[in-house]
Order: sequence, then C-alpha cells, then structure tokens
Amino acid sequence: MPDPSSRRTFLAASAAAVSTAAFPWNTAAAEDSAAELISGKDERLIVLKPYPAVIETPLKLLTEHQLTPAELLFVRNNSQPKDAATISASTHRQWAISVGGAVSKTARIALNSLGSLPRTEYEMVLQCSGNGRSLFSFAAQTSGTQWGRGGMGNVKFGGVRLSAVLDHLGVEVRKSVRFVNAGGSDEPLPDKEDFLHSLPVEDVLNRSIIATTLNGKPLAAIHGGPARLITPGVFGTMQVKWLSELIFVAEESTNYNHVPRYRVPNSPIRPGTKYDFTLQNSAYNWDLKVKSVILNPNHGDALKAGENTIQGVAFNDGRVSISSVLLSFDKGQTWTRAELSQPESQYGWIRFSLKKKLSRGTHTIWSRAIDELGRTQPLDGSIAWNPRGYEWNGVEQIKVTVS
Amino acid sequence: MPDPSSRRTFLAASAAAVSTAAFPWNTAAAEDSAAELISGKDERLIVLKPYPAVIETPLKLLTEHQLTPAELLFVRNNSQPKDAATISASTHRQWAISVGGAVSKTARIALNSLGSLPRTEYEMVLQCSGNGRSLFSFAAQTSGTQWGRGGMGNVKFGGVRLSAVLDHLGVEVRKSVRFVNAGGSDEPLPDKEDFLHSLPVEDVLNRSIIATTLNGKPLAAIHGGPARLITPGVFGTMQVKWLSELIFVAEESTNYNHVPRYRVPNSPIRPGTKYDFTLQNSAYNWDLKVKSVILNPNHGDALKAGENTIQGVAFNDGRVSISSVLLSFDKGQTWTRAELSQPESQYGWIRFSLKKKLSRGTHTIWSRAIDELGRTQPLDGSIAWNPRGYEWNGVEQIKVTVS
Repeated sequence: MPDPSSRRTFLAASAAAVSTAAFPWNTAAAEDSAAELISGKDERLIVLKPYPAVIETPLKLLTEHQLTPAELLFVRNNSQPKDAATISASTHRQWAISVGGAVSKTARIALNSLGSLPRTEYEMVLQCSGNGRSLFSFAAQTSGTQWGRGGMGNVKFGGVRLSAVLDHLGVEVRKSVRFVNAGGSDEPLPDKEDFLHSLPVEDVLNRSIIATTLNGKPLAAIHGGPARLITPGVFGTMQVKWLSELIFVAEESTNYNHVPRYRVPNSPIRPGTKYDFTLQNSAYNWDLKVKSVILNPNHGDALKAGENTIQGVAFNDGRVSISSVLLSFDKGQTWTRAELSQPESQYGWIRFSLKKKLSRGTHTIWSRAIDELGRTQPLDGSIAWNPRGYEWNGVEQIKVTVS
Repeated sequence: MPDPSSRRTFLAASAAAVSTAAFPWNTAAAEDSAAELISGKDERLIVLKPYPAVIETPLKLLTEHQLTPAELLFVRNNSQPKDAATISASTHRQWAISVGGAVSKTARIALNSLGSLPRTEYEMVLQCSGNGRSLFSFAAQTSGTQWGRGGMGNVKFGGVRLSAVLDHLGVEVRKSVRFVNAGGSDEPLPDKEDFLHSLPVEDVLNRSIIATTLNGKPLAAIHGGPARLITPGVFGTMQVKWLSELIFVAEESTNYNHVPRYRVPNSPIRPGTKYDFTLQNSAYNWDLKVKSVILNPNHGDALKAGENTIQGVAFNDGRVSISSVLLSFDKGQTWTRAELSQPESQYGWIRFSLKKKLSRGTHTIWSRAIDELGRTQPLDGSIAWNPRGYEWNGVEQIKVTVS
C-alpha cells in the first residue's frame, strides 16, 4: 500500500489558503464585500466572484446554527435577474410557471393560487456541486470558481409538492416521460445558453416542491425567489431558481448547462485527463455524496494545549442515516467515533463533536462520515477527480498548531 | 443514534453456529463428507447440501494459502453433470461452445482449436452471491441454503479472452447488443428451467475469458470444466460453468435463474418484506461488494491472554484498491488499521493482520474494509436484506473468549 500521508500533508497544507478569506486566485473579487453586493448578506462572507455572485461562508460561521440564516448562506448564480441582489423577497407578485411537454394538457401554475394546497417543509443541506473544488486542484487543476469548503448550508425550504400542483391543475404526465426540463427566468449571460437542467421525473414527482419560503420567510430573491424547484438530497445546481417553466420529456436535454457542464465521468479517470462529456459517459450532479466537514477548528488554527473540541457536520443524500463520523489524529492509523447530534431531518446535516486532549506541536485532524449503506468518503478525494471539479467528498484533512 | 451493540452481540453470538461444521438446519447433509461426494475434495470441508453439491470451506483453512487449492475450494452447483463429481479434469475432449444471436454469423468455438491464441490468467476472488446468507437471517429469514462465510476462495483462472476468440472466428457483435446469454450444459433439475444468465456485453468483451485452467491445472469438472465463462470481479453465479452457448441479445433474459433468482432490490427494503422481482426493480448479482472476513480466530474461539494475531482477507470488485482494513475491539467506538499484504492482483484478495494484546474476558472483534472510492461495509449488514439473502457484506463481527 502506498502511504498517502506525504501527499496528504501537502494537500492539507495547501488547503490553508482555502479556509481563509484570502483567495489569491480571485483577486478581482477581493474589492467587494458580500454585504455591498447582496443587500442583507453578512459582511464576513467570502466573495469569490462579484457578478453573477459567487459567495461562500467561512466555516466557523456555520458552527453556531443548525439552520443557516439567509444572511450567512452561500450564493452561486450562473446568471442573475437584475433585481435579485437581495435576501428580501422578490417583488414579482404575479409569478407563474408554465407546464408543457408530454402531458395531458399544458397549464400555468400561478403562485398566488396555491394557498389552498397543503404545504411541505424540508430541512435539508443545500450544497453547490462545486463545493470543495479547490481541493481537487492539488491533484490537477480544475476549471471553474475555486470554492473552498463553504459552498454549503443547512436550511429549511417550504412550498407545495409539484405532484399536488399537477393533480390540482388536472395535468397528467405521460408514461414515456423520464425527465423534467426545469428552466428559470434568469437572463443568460451574453453568448450563453439559458440555464436549464433535466431532472429525473420519478424523484421530482416523489419529492420536489415549488418552494416559496426559506427558513420560514419569503424566499430571498438572490436564492431564487419567488419560486424555486427544490428536491431535497440533491446538489444545488439542480434546485432551479426563478422557476418559470417545467417541460416533461422522454429524453435528457443537451442544454450546455446540463451537458457538458455539471457532470462527472461514470468511472474514475486520471487527474488531468480531458474528457468529452456526453449524456452516455457521464452523470449529472444529483444525489449528494456522503461527506463530513470540520467547521471548528479550521485548517491553520493555533490552539491551546489541553482538551479541545472538534466540531463539524455530516450529511448524505438522505436515503439512509449517517451511522458514524470517525476522526483520526494519526493520519488514518486509528479512528475514534465522534458524538453525533440527533438527526433533525433525513435530508439535513447532523453535527458531530469530539473532545480531544492535544499536546504541544502540530496535529493533523481527519474526519470521515460513514452512512448505513456503507458509503463513505475516499481517503484520497482526487480518486473522483473530474475536469470541472464537482462533487468533492474526500476525507476532511486539516492541520492545527498547539502551543 | 441507536446503539447497535446489543443487536450486534446477538448476531455475533448466533453466528457461532455458522463458523463451525455443525449446521443444525442442514442435518440431511451431515452424513456425507465432501471427500466422498466429490472426488479429491478435502474431508474437512462443510457439506451444506449433497446434490447438487453445496460445500463451504472452514475459514481457518483459507488462512494458509494465498491461492485456495482446488481441494479446499467451495462448491455451489444448481445442477450438475453426472460425471462432474471430481476435481480432476473433465473427460469431454471434443467440447465446443456455440455462438449466436445478434452477430454477423453464428459459429462454434472448439476448445481444442484455441491453442494458437494468447492466454490470460486472473488471480481473483470466487464468491457465491449467497455467501454469508445465514447472517441475514438474524434480521429476517431468507430462502436458500444457509451459507456461513466460507462460500469464497481466491484462485487463478486461465484461458483465452472471449473477444480474441470472436475476432479469431470473424464474429462481429451487432451494435444493438447489450447482454450475452451464457448457458451451460448442466442438466436442469426436474421442472426447473435450464441455468442461464444475461451478462452485460461491455464487461464481457473487456474482461471475460473462456477458462480452461484453475490454479494452473486443467479446470476441475466440479468447477465447470472443461470450459467456464470467467469474468473477474463479479459474483460466482455469473461465472457460468460447463459453458456451451453464448447468445448475444439486445434485451436481458427472463430465465427463472436470472430473474427472480440471483437478484437484489434496487433500493433497501425492510427485512422480511416480500418483493416481486422484475428486471426493472432489481439488479443481477454482478460486481462483488467490498468485504472483509476474519479467518482466524473464528467466532467462539478460546484464546490465551497476551498478544494475539487477527488475520483475514479483504476484496472488492477490482475497480480500485482496498485502501484500508480497520479493526475495532470496542464495538465501533475506535478502529485501528491492520497491516495489509501487497496486492497480487486487482481482482484477488489481500490479507490483513493485526497484533493485539487481549486481556482475560470476552472480546468482540469487528473488521471493516474500505476501498479507494470510499465504499465500505455497512455496520448493520441487514440494511441490504433481500428475500433470497444475496450479497451479504456487513461489517464482520465475531466474539472470542480469552483466558
């Protein structure tokens, strides 16, 4: 067995830059504060890109809350309506969503007509599929904004089940349908195709809601208000914002944002390999992969000798529970089970903590979540390297100094 | 988090019966020794069923050899040619395999004409998909022979790549083909359909060989000689013995032995649930699941206080390496990495060992393999419970007493 520790040490050391606010490769963004760019956002957030806004949350700010407040929640928009730069509600009061394709009749869903239908709330992890992308780059560079680990949050979305809305409208989906093309009313960037994803129809009809609230308040404009298609347990890119159309189809879309973007190869490839993404040789970013993230301490922190508490969160796609989070202080030779919080929701994250006596010197801390199906995080996350750097879920590895 | 230890203890205690030669639920078999049933087999093997032969290997006998000798190798036949009860070579010297279906021309593969083609050898795990089935039964009873853990071995198969044979014969496979129906010349039991499996054509053309040797000797008649279709990395049921026909097809077969037999549900179901298996709602037993098995000591063993060595083997489907095997002596609170042998082959098993000082009393020993993709064994293996008890890969859990 090759000993991964030397490479790991390098990776962990390099990750130092990631968990601080200084992103040398995003100097253009350093000028703007999140609070100036998006009305209502916390000024401590890390701006990776000003427009369309890409903003991540420093990990320690995620420690304090089970539900991530809107002012702390990360932002990742491919394109962004002009009036959306606020965590306040959207001002579009007559919003409607068109329904078409292989259905018994076309229809319009007027948001203000949904009041009579039962509402559903999901506490769930919202995570950009590019979250952690910068960690791949120590195996080989990936394209796209170099996210640290803070492109995630745990929130509560509320709305009405899409299946209930279709029933209410008398719209039946034909048997040939395998996907739903969900599109938003964001304006595409110049020369870019409109943002659209094909979502698997079975999951959508089982789980998806047309969400209109976030943490009990009207859904913030910057996060897709007034209406966002929310499916718990899946990556953020598939939670289409400013939802304006749903087209039921037999075949997956070839929209540029659905392929080659937001896809991972079907089988592992060597880091650095070019890959010509097709619908057949790759998968869209869908189910969240099992993951743990240490929120406190952060990589590079200086701690005091004695008992310290390691805190973090863990989650998966919600199909089964997280069964344990194991921590290692000796690069994987031995692992200790952390305390887990009671799950609040099958789709939300659980918090883990472990009290550990740390002596003076340098310590590495690794964390690894395992779920009931025996799915866990690879020790070397670059086994899942892909050209666009999606779905990072390597074992969390940080280094701290103790004095 | 529910503490699984009480249930686990029960499971481990119940497994005592499994790892000894006494199978109370197979009393009919207790009369025959493996050596009497199958000429050349070791008399220490455990006979689960005399005809067609189902015989497992006591785990300790697997400890001594990297390659499992033919006399120790488990046997599981659904039906069995009358002259096959021997580990000597088959006496059929004019054997041929017919090729048909969606191909450019039908053909016959005469084994004695293959001498000019390059030979390939695979060291690989051979494992019945029912191996470990009895462990499911402590969640809810499963049908089929109640295997302990010894329905597996690590052997070397040699032969000629099927793709090379087809090239040699000038047979081209049509683009519409998705499966190969592989059938053997075993005689079906009364009122049973002939044994046949549909194998995914891509894997078959990439990996499968027509095997004619086992550990360098002519392939034993009881193990499928003179010709067996061998695909490394997959369950034994798909390694069709006494291979006599290969039919290339667009659609998966509905042969009784392919569905509902030898299938697992697509998603976890509650133990005890009935399941109406179809091609759509289930998967055939194909890729081996990541697994570790403690070979020595065995469950129920009495050890001496002081340093003891825990030994076992670990494997997966060969797509990536096993990255670690972790052992726990405190029911999962802490885990220690075992020493691993150098891999001999991507498809073979690796051996693990850990020296551990054990004090007087009762000890539980758990083992868990993890591979580079982050695939591991579920702590509670019954999460994968299925009515026919296939593909058990729960965390290995045994109990020993130390005096």
